[in-house]
Amino acid sequence: MKAIPLKARVDLNADMGEGFGPWRMGDDDAIMKIVTSANIACGFHAGDPDIMARSFDAAKRLGVNAGAHPGYPDLSGFGRRPMGFSPAAIERLMSYQIGAALALSRHVGNPITYVKAHGALAHAGEANRETAQAMCAAIKSAAPDLVCMAIAGGLLHEVALQMGLRVCSEIYADRGYNNDGKLIPRGQPGDLITDSTFAAERALRMLRGGGIEAVDGSLVPVSIDSICVHGDSAHAVETATQIRQQLEGAGIAVQSFMAHADA
Amino acid sequence: MKAIPLKARVDLNADMGEGFGPWRMGDDDAIMKIVTSANIACGFHAGDPDIMARSFDAAKRLGVNAGAHPGYPDLSGFGRRPMGFSPAAIERLMSYQIGAALALSRHVGNPITYVKAHGALAHAGEANRETAQAMCAAIKSAAPDLVCMAIAGGLLHEVALQMGLRVCSEIYADRGYNNDGKLIPRGQPGDLITDSTFAAERALRMLRGGGIEAVDGSLVPVSIDSICVHGDSAHAVETATQIRQQLEGAGIAVQSFMAHADA
Amino acid sequence: MKAIPLKARVDLNADMGEGFGPWRMGDDDAIMKIVTSANIACGFHAGDPDIMARSFDAAKRLGVNAGAHPGYPDLSGFGRRPMGFSPAAIERLMSYQIGAALALSRHVGNPITYVKAHGALAHAGEANRETAQAMCAAIKSAAPDLVCMAIAGGLLHEVALQMGLRVCSEIYADRGYNNDGKLIPRGQPGDLITDSTFAAERALRMLRGGGIEAVDGSLVPVSIDSICVHGDSAHAVETATQIRQQLEGAGIAVQSFMAHADA
Amino acid sequence: MKAIPLKARVDLNADMGEGFGPWRMGDDDAIMKIVTSANIACGFHAGDPDIMARSFDAAKRLGVNAGAHPGYPDLSGFGRRPMGFSPAAIERLMSYQIGAALALSRHVGNPITYVKAHGALAHAGEANRETAQAMCAAIKSAAPDLVCMAIAGGLLHEVALQMGLRVCSEIYADRGYNNDGKLIPRGQPGDLITDSTFAAERALRMLRGGGIEAVDGSLVPVSIDSICVHGDSAHAVETATQIRQQLEGAGIAVQSFMAHADA
Repeated sequence: MKAIPLKARVDLNADMGEGFGPWRMGDDDAIMKIVTSANIACGFHAGDPDIMARSFDAAKRLGVNAGAHPGYPDLSGFGRRPMGFSPAAIERLMSYQIGAALALSRHVGNPITYVKAHGALAHAGEANRETAQAMCAAIKSAAPDLVCMAIAGGLLHEVALQMGLRVCSEIYADRGYNNDGKLIPRGQPGDLITDSTFAAERALRMLRGGGIEAVDGSLVPVSIDSICVHGDSAHAVETATQIRQQLEGAGIAVQSFMAHADA
Repeated sequence: MKAIPLKARVDLNADMGEGFGPWRMGDDDAIMKIVTSANIACGFHAGDPDIMARSFDAAKRLGVNAGAHPGYPDLSGFGRRPMGFSPAAIERLMSYQIGAALALSRHVGNPITYVKAHGALAHAGEANRETAQAMCAAIKSAAPDLVCMAIAGGLLHEVALQMGLRVCSEIYADRGYNNDGKLIPRGQPGDLITDSTFAAERALRMLRGGGIEAVDGSLVPVSIDSICVHGDSAHAVETATQIRQQLEGAGIAVQSFMAHADA
Repeated sequence: MKAIPLKARVDLNADMGEGFGPWRMGDDDAIMKIVTSANIACGFHAGDPDIMARSFDAAKRLGVNAGAHPGYPDLSGFGRRPMGFSPAAIERLMSYQIGAALALSRHVGNPITYVKAHGALAHAGEANRETAQAMCAAIKSAAPDLVCMAIAGGLLHEVALQMGLRVCSEIYADRGYNNDGKLIPRGQPGDLITDSTFAAERALRMLRGGGIEAVDGSLVPVSIDSICVHGDSAHAVETATQIRQQLEGAGIAVQSFMAHADA
Repeated sequence: MKAIPLKARVDLNADMGEGFGPWRMGDDDAIMKIVTSANIACGFHAGDPDIMARSFDAAKRLGVNAGAHPGYPDLSGFGRRPMGFSPAAIERLMSYQIGAALALSRHVGNPITYVKAHGALAHAGEANRETAQAMCAAIKSAAPDLVCMAIAGGLLHEVALQMGLRVCSEIYADRGYNNDGKLIPRGQPGDLITDSTFAAERALRMLRGGGIEAVDGSLVPVSIDSICVHGDSAHAVETATQIRQQLEGAGIAVQSFMAHADA
């Protein structure tokens, strides 16, 4: 097997704007200063027009690349409950949310460049090819140049490429992987990585190794365009900060994946 | 005062897709065959992605011109309750809903050509200039060629023209008017016209006269591009049918206002 | 096996008050005149305080026995989507809705006497013993004399008896059964019975036979206290009317199950 | 005028359980240790069955008196927007929420003893006698011994007494008053008191003086059973702590108003 070259640059993304009405989630102000791409909730699992506009605007002021982060219509369950939607229904609820995000982000002057599905909607796209196709169809028809952000080595990633979409492949800094390259489901041992230093060092190893580091230490080769950090955990800001420092200390440029594409 | 020429053609519009989840409102299938423009609810006061997609598709099959019909985020109150939103908040909730409608209608292959506000949101745009400006700004930024459908002779109509939007001015077939050209508020005597024949004949008189026929019989001159019929009353289908027959019997072409524009 | 005596009386129940805000479902006014027990939606899958109060009041005027009909918090899916709630979460959402129905029905002067779960919530109670126990615990703590209406021969029925609740066991007039006594799932062949005459005659046969008539003609012996008719289908009123006539023609008294209990 | 004796004891109340689904508001754990009565949101402006049950349980463990805190059905506006409900509609939405809170709090083993309206609903009860009567009717029919917590010297207070309800009259520690004894509306100068020390000293002065201290220094005599502290501001915990210390330092017993009543 030929050596996989070290990526000289990488994107950092996080979920943002996941409040609703009077409620907020995570420290968006702090996270927005660290990441290079912001996944903005679209009003179904979280977010409302005011929060979305503020988030697009905050991203604009900090030069952060904005994306739509659609989810299931389930505020009380935060879009994490499976809801049994058909692929066609998923296509429509994705189209609706992407359209809303497109209009609001353009209105604010920071048009979204990509789409990343949330929670149970994202899982549905990894579990069923027809659903993945429906998601890609919704992205494609909303605006032809929207990038599909998808789990590195996953089904949605594969389908998006087949359907001619540009893809940004991402790994998770603070989630464990099985040695088939799949995320360890939430609630199972090893699902979450809470040691910021370990998470940062592992992220660097994965970029250097050109693949996913599984819980058993094995490496599953994948292309890595972006690293996802979570903004809503207790030490989210610290973890994100350490990852960024670790990467930059190793000479890796932390930039929006759109900058890569444009280069 | 010079004579106002008889309009040789007019658009008929109605609110549609105003169900939600398992619920339906009015007989959309029947009304869609009579009108030439369909105001499709956008998910806030009514409508959901499935109903929206079905409505855009039904309009497409019948050659009906589709528009976005945004409202306040208030399902239980059907968007008819004043909610005290600021102009800026209204701009954002309009932008969100128009964007959602744009994406879904394009996805279905029947892109919206216009925007008409619903209920208490529409009233807000007639009552406050800053709000009307916010609404027009949202329409303009969503897509530059979207038409603003507005009450003939009203504030939104005036503001939309000032801001360079194309406007479709409408009158209501089944609502009474005061002699200042304003709708008699719901709940006051003369607010609703329930006699289908009278409604149809009055509509024809208004088109011929080139203005609004007030409750006292006086005529308030306005330009009339479209006549709004309601789809959710008991005799909605009968009223709409009679109006269309009355107009066509008088030699007036009933066509989408977009056809007028293109002519 | 000893002969099962003909039940001389039976209750008829239907779901009611399943509108929301501006929307209505089914012809409650007509159905309320036919049935003897009304399952009133509690605001989660359908219903709101105004509709609930109106429904309790309509039942009162017609002498109809009122019950709470709690469901999952899912208006857009009408409480028919599985949502993965834990038994403890189900206990809490049942308790909340039963309490709301208790207060409103007392306020109107027609206190609920029973609880019947809706849609996916009802299915959850048939599929998992711990869930059935949670549902019964919620009923029991809300008011000690509330009856649990449950599918004849099902798990909830069994658990409710074990936990010392009074139970009203019901069969479905317009749903098919497998020969294990379980409902044929919606969407499978034979799930729905649309022939009113057949439904009415089958209901009578089941009462006479003292059990469920399965799709293969076999009889599964169960006790039958109530027959459920659906209020939201096209011929709901006709079906319910025929069932009531068929039963009364055969000399069976159609009365609220509470009248039985009090006798 | 005869001297008003120093109250030897007072209740401290705060709004709690005002999260929803994945979201939380304020530091309930800390506030619950300081106050003696907890106003628990009932699911309309905030709160859901899980959060409600947790809040009733937390109150139980700390010996805190629990109350229902109903509001308008408006999550995105946090129940602070006027919504134009009729008195009859308010009666029904109060009844619904009080019933839900009664059942859940009994289920947890910490039955509510009082009701305090939230936000725009509370304002409606101060602004219109018929609305205040509707609110009291809902409280009364839910359970005859429920206390009505109301603004000292306000309309609801007066109506509740007339209707034979027990009343707990409260003042606000961190809100300014006009010299007619009414709260300075939010957004006007002097509406909020952000200096914890001043708030605590003023609370003590009001208890000692037996009335409301207005912004101009004048005293409006009222009976004071409870002091409301807000749990959701930046220094809420500090303010509440200082108030409690100030009062106890002055020899005033800080106890639930239910303890007063029972004494």
